[in-house]
Amino acid sequence: MELEQMGKLAKEAARRMIKLSQPEKNVCLTAVAKNLIDETDAILEANRKDIENGEKNNMPPALLDRLRLTEERINAIADGVRQIAALDDPIGEVISMKERPNGLLIGKKRVPIGVIGIIYESRPNVTVDAFSLCFKTSNAVILRGGSDAINSNMALVSVIKKSLEENNVTKDAVFLVEDTSRETANHMMQLNNYIDVLIPRGGAGLIKTVVQNATIPVIETGTGNCHIYIDASADVDMAVSIVENAKLQRLGVCNACESLVIHKDIAGDVMPELLAMLKENECEVRGDELVRAFDNEVIPASVEDYETEYLDKIISARIVDTIDQAIEHINKYSTGHSEAIITKDYDNAQRFLNEIDSAAVYVNASTRFTDGFEFGFGAEIGISTQKLHARGPMGLEALTTTKYVIYGNGQVRP
Amino acid sequence: MELEQMGKLAKEAARRMIKLSQPEKNVCLTAVAKNLIDETDAILEANRKDIENGEKNNMPPALLDRLRLTEERINAIADGVRQIAALDDPIGEVISMKERPNGLLIGKKRVPIGVIGIIYESRPNVTVDAFSLCFKTSNAVILRGGSDAINSNMALVSVIKKSLEENNVTKDAVFLVEDTSRETANHMMQLNNYIDVLIPRGGAGLIKTVVQNATIPVIETGTGNCHIYIDASADVDMAVSIVENAKLQRLGVCNACESLVIHKDIAGDVMPELLAMLKENECEVRGDELVRAFDNEVIPASVEDYETEYLDKIISARIVDTIDQAIEHINKYSTGHSEAIITKDYDNAQRFLNEIDSAAVYVNASTRFTDGFEFGFGAEIGISTQKLHARGPMGLEALTTTKYVIYGNGQVRP
Repeated sequence: MELEQMGKLAKEAARRMIKLSQPEKNVCLTAVAKNLIDETDAILEANRKDIENGEKNNMPPALLDRLRLTEERINAIADGVRQIAALDDPIGEVISMKERPNGLLIGKKRVPIGVIGIIYESRPNVTVDAFSLCFKTSNAVILRGGSDAINSNMALVSVIKKSLEENNVTKDAVFLVEDTSRETANHMMQLNNYIDVLIPRGGAGLIKTVVQNATIPVIETGTGNCHIYIDASADVDMAVSIVENAKLQRLGVCNACESLVIHKDIAGDVMPELLAMLKENECEVRGDELVRAFDNEVIPASVEDYETEYLDKIISARIVDTIDQAIEHINKYSTGHSEAIITKDYDNAQRFLNEIDSAAVYVNASTRFTDGFEFGFGAEIGISTQKLHARGPMGLEALTTTKYVIYGNGQVRP
Repeated sequence: MELEQMGKLAKEAARRMIKLSQPEKNVCLTAVAKNLIDETDAILEANRKDIENGEKNNMPPALLDRLRLTEERINAIADGVRQIAALDDPIGEVISMKERPNGLLIGKKRVPIGVIGIIYESRPNVTVDAFSLCFKTSNAVILRGGSDAINSNMALVSVIKKSLEENNVTKDAVFLVEDTSRETANHMMQLNNYIDVLIPRGGAGLIKTVVQNATIPVIETGTGNCHIYIDASADVDMAVSIVENAKLQRLGVCNACESLVIHKDIAGDVMPELLAMLKENECEVRGDELVRAFDNEVIPASVEDYETEYLDKIISARIVDTIDQAIEHINKYSTGHSEAIITKDYDNAQRFLNEIDSAAVYVNASTRFTDGFEFGFGAEIGISTQKLHARGPMGLEALTTTKYVIYGNGQVRP
């Protein structure tokens, strides 16, 4: 189907979806979960084609693993859909309502955005997850996944469409762009007449392409060059434990710590333990001269190191004279995702919270908590590192907009 | 100054402006108001140059009037600044704070966006207004006004910078792009490293150019092809009075009514009075065959008429069989700004509020109320017709973002 036609039908579907009740939506989502399980064989067969193609094209093992579906993974995807069904529906909530002196009652109501475009890479679970979050919030969705996962995605979307039809809901609530060419992706990014918002999910390259080519508003989900600053008064054990967690608990995630900044007055106490812990975990350290003075195995850090989100067992480190230097360094190199200070000092904690310009700023906790589930949202569509609309972990509310509903009795403007 | 350099300095200024207290900001704004009055002569002299250039270039009288400053208008601009100084400052408000089961205290705090770019046309009052709103919310601002007003804008920005310096606040809080070429404007729209958000203020052409060329997130302030639907059960007098107000109270504004939709069952009652009122006000009507049956002076309406924001004494009209047709027509042709239903029917009022996809939806009131001041915000930076970040009239809050501030005591992620 032509993209324009898809957009047109999705927009019409979105108009009709405004009338869906919470129970109607949840019945559909439950049906999707059930049908995913029932059709496991067909989904696995489609996925096998993608895996075979990947193997033929020498896809690296890590990517093949992301692409691969198993019975267990399909169960997990179905569980995810059921969890979304169980969440509170934000649509229809009136956030505020005030009477004006002229008697007009002005309310601000949470409503669906309309049509959401999602552009993503090779994980087929995103297909179901993105649909479920958009559908829960009464949005139609146009999905454009990677060519690597096209057979899996077609099988998954076919199960979703069938589940919708079984429940008399328009199957145009979801579309998959089957033509995975670059031209079609670029066309989709400029389909302003039909798509209200674009959300790219994937690596830095994908996100940059979308930001630079889209004329539709984009919610930028971001890379995380996250910092931990160990202040002069930090508890040394706490600092080491938080760095270990933030750097090493999971490597390939955007909320992992990639860079350390250490106050010179605590360096003597904390560096030996910190470096020992990192060495024990086979984590490479790239530091400035002051860091290298503690261990000559530390590799000299370049500006590029300070700019890098390693997503690997590598961490950069710098020793500073003051908290001002620390804040300046972090605001300079950070991608605005998550940063933490480890301190016992009240004023420094407050300064760090105020002056660090990132989506999530922590005192005495691991950056790994920046996550929709950890924040208690029950879901996550991504983590926004831009400042418009949503910043930080995005749950269902990020997929809504508001409109003003105004109740009058004949008022005219004087 | 080079645009890149301007962006860099503005970004640095924005970082420092985070530390400004409410009283410090209000003292500066009050000084701006005072200095505008004190320097009226210099401002008027600069404005005279712009007016002379405009006359030389045969600028139409309406545009010359927009461009012209007078002592009275400068007083009004200064009053506007004082009013902004008197408003509550939204910065620093913690919107929510919750403790998670692991003891993390997660708060969501309103903070400045950073650097805001404003691209606008020939009204010099926007220069002061946009600066004041951005400064009140601790944002640095880069202003790019039209070439027609460049001398006025330079004089106004010079007064603002002087007022900031007098109060030991960085004058880099505001920049005026003095090179008003298209190339520089396009460059500004892609200054992603330094500008966080772009707000275009002006006509449809300007807004379209910004939306299509910007890689920075844009808040689209919009054109208003606003509708009034007169339902079968409407009070006829109320309908006529609201249409008169919405169409004619002020012609050149985005919340003026441009199109009528009338239910056939009330057409016989309402059309004679409505057409008489419009004729008396010399307002041209362009309608479908059913409308023309009431008055053969009505001009046949084309699809283009239904799509047009006239901003003039012209209105389009259509008679429909059902509220469904009315809703479909409005959602098809509306620009998503403001629409109203006139009705006594409860269910139809609720359906209209729910199903019309616009920023402000009214029952029994004039669309002219869509305005930051009328909504009680005390200020207005524009009216958003997009769905991300802000929708409808935007006050100070639209110039803020949020960040998560998280208080821990050593938590790591299991």
